[in-house]
Amino acid sequence: MPIRLYQIRESGNCYRVRLMLALLGQTADLIEASPERDGAALGAFREVPVLVDGSLRLRDSQAILVYLARRYGEPHWLPDGAEALARIQQWLSFAANEIQNGPRMARGIVRFGRAGDLEAALRKAERALRLLDLHLAARTWLETGAPTIADVACYPYVSKAGEAGIDMSAYPALARWIGRIETLDGYVPPEAPGSAGRTA
Amino acid sequence: MPIRLYQIRESGNCYRVRLMLALLGQTADLIEASPERDGAALGAFREVPVLVDGSLRLRDSQAILVYLARRYGEPHWLPDGAEALARIQQWLSFAANEIQNGPRMARGIVRFGRAGDLEAALRKAERALRLLDLHLAARTWLETGAPTIADVACYPYVSKAGEAGIDMSAYPALARWIGRIETLDGYVPPEAPGSAGRTA
Repeated sequence: MPIRLYQIRESGNCYRVRLMLALLGQTADLIEASPERDGAALGAFREVPVLVDGSLRLRDSQAILVYLARRYGEPHWLPDGAEALARIQQWLSFAANEIQNGPRMARGIVRFGRAGDLEAALRKAERALRLLDLHLAARTWLETGAPTIADVACYPYVSKAGEAGIDMSAYPALARWIGRIETLDGYVPPEAPGSAGRTA
Repeated sequence: MPIRLYQIRESGNCYRVRLMLALLGQTADLIEASPERDGAALGAFREVPVLVDGSLRLRDSQAILVYLARRYGEPHWLPDGAEALARIQQWLSFAANEIQNGPRMARGIVRFGRAGDLEAALRKAERALRLLDLHLAARTWLETGAPTIADVACYPYVSKAGEAGIDMSAYPALARWIGRIETLDGYVPPEAPGSAGRTA
């Protein structure tokens, strides 16, 4: 039975999973989630993405990256060992907190008219982008010298930060890293239709 | 050279690390961080906690839990294998997002007079506590049947949610889980002075 991904196409958190699947060369059935029809699959959280693989059901895009990388990926995507795991975890937390509350929130307000404090979100976004730019100034990838799930976790909302009106030319190392991700084998842009499989 | 933990004693994110150290039977030098004196240790993020172990320097309390568990802990704290790692990651993300933006934010506003939207924070807090209570209704620990870093990650701000004025008796399974954590070998409460080592 193929992997199923319950998603909302426009969600950057869902795109993060489609990108990981594509980079790993995995296909999945993409299901546009409806709270009424897919209540059982979405579980109590009622959030997308949800990945179903056999008897396993996982919520949370970061958790899904961990699973896919470890289950289907080359070791470089999520190396074992205390230090590498922890270094990567730093950026999973960064994606869940600084990026969600910064670039993602700012773009949601500017682009989709969501409620929120734009000034605070832009301030957090600029701090997050500055920290990433500084970190990447002397690095090719976020950690370990190879692409990992840390890069996949941070990329989606960072690459769209310009849509919040942020001048990305202020972050040259970050811009180069975005370019490197976009030339990885298997890379798909957010807009690619059904790129990781058919849309159910 | 002993492990060093740069912290602010009152921070729940720093307590999370002290609790993990104590549960693993590890000691550390606890250093009350000062931005002026400890700039190099705190790095560009200028945030606590920061853990230093030999040549390794880690920020982010969740990343530090991953490191400590894998480096010093019995395997049950962070089992290997795609499914267990991913199930645990679901709760690390939950701690970084739902718990930070819910119970932590609400307590910060009520208890410490921080800026923020109390009504929104309480709404998020109650959703987070309800989801935890539901998940724990038929479980002893969050995942895998044994205590893991998921429990340690979620415990600090959840156990303090009552200080935001939330009635914790509405969440009986959660209350039992809190009680179980507090009887684990090595458990230390947030207030324990220098419980994981000396205070430098």
